[in-house]
Amino acid sequence: MSGVLYGIGLGPGDPELMTLKAARLIGAATVLAYPALPGVDSFARSIAAGIIPTRAREITLSVPMSVERGPAQAAYDAGAAEIAAVLDSGEDVVFLCEGDPLFYGSFMYLLARLRDRFTVEIVPGVTSVSAGAARLALPVAARNEVLSVIPAPMESAALAEHIGRADAVAIMKVGRHLGRVRGVIDGLGLLDQASYIERATLAAEKRMPLAKAPDPAPYFSLILLTKGADPWL
Amino acid sequence: MSGVLYGIGLGPGDPELMTLKAARLIGAATVLAYPALPGVDSFARSIAAGIIPTRAREITLSVPMSVERGPAQAAYDAGAAEIAAVLDSGEDVVFLCEGDPLFYGSFMYLLARLRDRFTVEIVPGVTSVSAGAARLALPVAARNEVLSVIPAPMESAALAEHIGRADAVAIMKVGRHLGRVRGVIDGLGLLDQASYIERATLAAEKRMPLAKAPDPAPYFSLILLTKGADPWL
Repeated sequence: MSGVLYGIGLGPGDPELMTLKAARLIGAATVLAYPALPGVDSFARSIAAGIIPTRAREITLSVPMSVERGPAQAAYDAGAAEIAAVLDSGEDVVFLCEGDPLFYGSFMYLLARLRDRFTVEIVPGVTSVSAGAARLALPVAARNEVLSVIPAPMESAALAEHIGRADAVAIMKVGRHLGRVRGVIDGLGLLDQASYIERATLAAEKRMPLAKAPDPAPYFSLILLTKGADPWL
Repeated sequence: MSGVLYGIGLGPGDPELMTLKAARLIGAATVLAYPALPGVDSFARSIAAGIIPTRAREITLSVPMSVERGPAQAAYDAGAAEIAAVLDSGEDVVFLCEGDPLFYGSFMYLLARLRDRFTVEIVPGVTSVSAGAARLALPVAARNEVLSVIPAPMESAALAEHIGRADAVAIMKVGRHLGRVRGVIDGLGLLDQASYIERATLAAEKRMPLAKAPDPAPYFSLILLTKGADPWL
């Protein structure tokens, strides 16, 4: 009988924000897998490091980050093949994912490649949006508000349109787009309602009004903005 | 010295999907508080039931669900006063929240009433959106897609406009609005791309294509829809 592929959300970074289920499955794993940028330690692995069994085998998927999609897809092909071989042998594979596996997560690439041949179980995790809101003590969305989650790389006119229409906004993947995104938000007259947080829940966390945020920002950074459209108090 | 108010996200319902931090704080609590509908057992308490210390004191906030906001606000006023008295005595209060405290969560009402006088720490939780996606094995949002989270009570024209503009959509609080919302989605030609899930991660969970979903749906139900706008494979 084939093994089961577990796609495990580890949450935003603080190891205590992984779920009990994630911790149980990782603690019992014999084979673990995780993505990493080439030549860089895996962020996902670092979140789970304290509970990875010493005798577990580890598979690293070295996934290049580039605008072209070919190289990353090739890395997922190779990783899926390696994982499939383990599953075929009857052993389970525990795949570690930052945040939540299916919320802008790369686990979808493995899911698409392996779901037809193997049982896949997904363990959801705390997203960076929830973690950022908690650290900022900022209600993300209230009552009947529309929350839009928007990736920062989007071009400015579309960004302005999406921000204009939502009641509350989370902007992901800010990084080098910070200056431009801040300009768009300022142009909409919403700068005073926007907060910035980087590396939420990690020791290196920083949070401040968006007006004071560093440009460029690191990759793990987030803007939260709420218009107070629904007067909930 | 005053006690600390902890706002704890418990996740979607499966007790194993609470975080290690949530479990640690609940297990050490001397005073717990949670919301409940009048005359009904608290769903939040039921998620944590297995780890609530037997000698902990418990404060129930009986919060009526109604379109009028006065009665609920009065309940939060009374609950906040009761919690404040405990915090003033120097004891911490662990407040239990379904899902994530600040993602359409009622914890914001206590936060607004108590944050100026006491230290508040928020522990984020797994949202029903992440849990629903995991159980449906459905990538919520990929790459540079916009995800809009939309409450079902919104009137139909606005609903159609928001769904039309997003790449991926999560519709919350479906309940008695299911038939109408399904009609809107069908009218946009998107019915085949929409999935339905109720009571995600609980024993009573049900999931199916939206086309086959029950009308009316229970309150804890969710529609997930993705247009496949960003071809991620």
